[in-house]
Amino acid sequence: MSIAIAIIGYGKIAEDQHVPAIRANPDFHLAASVSRRLAGPPGVPAFASIADLSASGLPIDAVALCNTPTERPATAFEALAAGWHVLMEKPPAATLAVAEQIAAAARAAGVSLFASWHCRFGPAVAAAKALLSGRRIDSLLIDWREDVRKWHPGQQWIWQPGGFGVFDPGINGLSLLSEILPVELAISAARLETPANHQTPIAARLDFSGPGIPANAHGLFDWLEPDDRWNIHIGFEGHTLLLSHGGSRLTLDEVPQEVGNEGEYPPLYRRFAELVNHRESEVDLRPLQLVADAFLLGERVTVPAFE
Amino acid sequence: MSIAIAIIGYGKIAEDQHVPAIRANPDFHLAASVSRRLAGPPGVPAFASIADLSASGLPIDAVALCNTPTERPATAFEALAAGWHVLMEKPPAATLAVAEQIAAAARAAGVSLFASWHCRFGPAVAAAKALLSGRRIDSLLIDWREDVRKWHPGQQWIWQPGGFGVFDPGINGLSLLSEILPVELAISAARLETPANHQTPIAARLDFSGPGIPANAHGLFDWLEPDDRWNIHIGFEGHTLLLSHGGSRLTLDEVPQEVGNEGEYPPLYRRFAELVNHRESEVDLRPLQLVADAFLLGERVTVPAFE
Repeated sequence: MSIAIAIIGYGKIAEDQHVPAIRANPDFHLAASVSRRLAGPPGVPAFASIADLSASGLPIDAVALCNTPTERPATAFEALAAGWHVLMEKPPAATLAVAEQIAAAARAAGVSLFASWHCRFGPAVAAAKALLSGRRIDSLLIDWREDVRKWHPGQQWIWQPGGFGVFDPGINGLSLLSEILPVELAISAARLETPANHQTPIAARLDFSGPGIPANAHGLFDWLEPDDRWNIHIGFEGHTLLLSHGGSRLTLDEVPQEVGNEGEYPPLYRRFAELVNHRESEVDLRPLQLVADAFLLGERVTVPAFE
Repeated sequence: MSIAIAIIGYGKIAEDQHVPAIRANPDFHLAASVSRRLAGPPGVPAFASIADLSASGLPIDAVALCNTPTERPATAFEALAAGWHVLMEKPPAATLAVAEQIAAAARAAGVSLFASWHCRFGPAVAAAKALLSGRRIDSLLIDWREDVRKWHPGQQWIWQPGGFGVFDPGINGLSLLSEILPVELAISAARLETPANHQTPIAARLDFSGPGIPANAHGLFDWLEPDDRWNIHIGFEGHTLLLSHGGSRLTLDEVPQEVGNEGEYPPLYRRFAELVNHRESEVDLRPLQLVADAFLLGERVTVPAFE
């Protein structure tokens, strides 16, 4: 039976990614949208709040939370209390404790929770993971740089306490790295460069460690790079792997590999359907935990103000 | 059969607390001690390293890690690899990822891991937990203050990145709070007061939230208080509970309750024996997670340098 799904929060990511992926997937039908300004796809019933949707009596099985990170936890609790399956955009919450409370609420409600990391559904990710499976890792560099003025123009929340700073995009890289590596990552040292007028870092260096992690494994995150670069370089048993373009391209020993070019959201929705149909949940908090560990352990270095 | 236990790291806490608790517990016998300077209780074989102890052929079932937080994770991996059960002092590691790696290593080795929080074995804790069980919490204040010059004289590591600062003692309060409350805590805001010449906070205010947590639930942590104060005040269903002296005294509606005065370590070792005998582990990372969430979410406020 087709899963009646409502989209909560109708912004650019919902319009560009979620709606087409839902419409292309026969396991779902788009039953409603919720946004304060009653925006939504043409022909789909729109509601101003989850309470209004719930009161409408419209049959709903699941929701996709495409709203802002700040609103996401409260709407997750509301949707779970209504007995709906929940797909969350990343990150599931601003803290680990709240993310675990949401997971506990899903268990109590007996519904499926998918705390998704969209990057992990990039076309090159499964191939990279398969290549590394069971291999010895010899070198590791995650190089995650972009221009904050281009990608986050005028956004103030990212600079506030809890706004993640350069780890707002950086958590995408950490979600990929923790997915493809055959061993577990930890952070042994971190340097967080924080603008004098802000609370969150604009650049960071992480040193990784752990059983099976080579010496000099590290991550560079930078928000002042004009040329975007979302790369993971891994050396293993005489080979070099480069997962680039945020998970969409792969080279092995400098030879580009054929990985297809499907977007991230169609396979993400296939996974959600699988979870709902099996009444299972997928809540992997390791990317958020690595960011929390970076803040816990990180040396703060003040750098010039950023306007 | 008695558990042959070795003490790793022979400092003040080992001498004052672990050795007497082990000697008073018929489930254990103290088989060895390990410290670089070959210190240890009289009559107990002393070794300079875990490798030396292992090579000695002395039969060992378990170890208690009483060494410094920096050394603890590496020694935990060594002991687990040797097939020994492991009792760890708090905190188990400087990051959540390493703590989880240690837990995974214990699972892989098929031995018991007890990541202990000694405060939870204070004589008043079980009674406080029983009083709150199933109750509605109406107010909550954790008030954790001490004089850093008295308790941490000359210690520099606590001020370095990863040194926890005021959360080095504060994590004791969070271990108590997460043990006795009938609901789960999360942090919704934090203010971290950090000396201009250091990396970790000297004082902090946490705002708590979560299902069942009342508004205005918060925590105050201060390292410049001349009169030590390790208190948790909880209002519930018309009553007031005060868990004071770090978990050793309890008043209900201002009436002191009889809770005994056994130290923390004898019951902690009884719990460890129980875990070993049932081949179970106890690894509750919530206190460390709350500290990580505080750093992740916290507003940094610079306060005068501390020498």
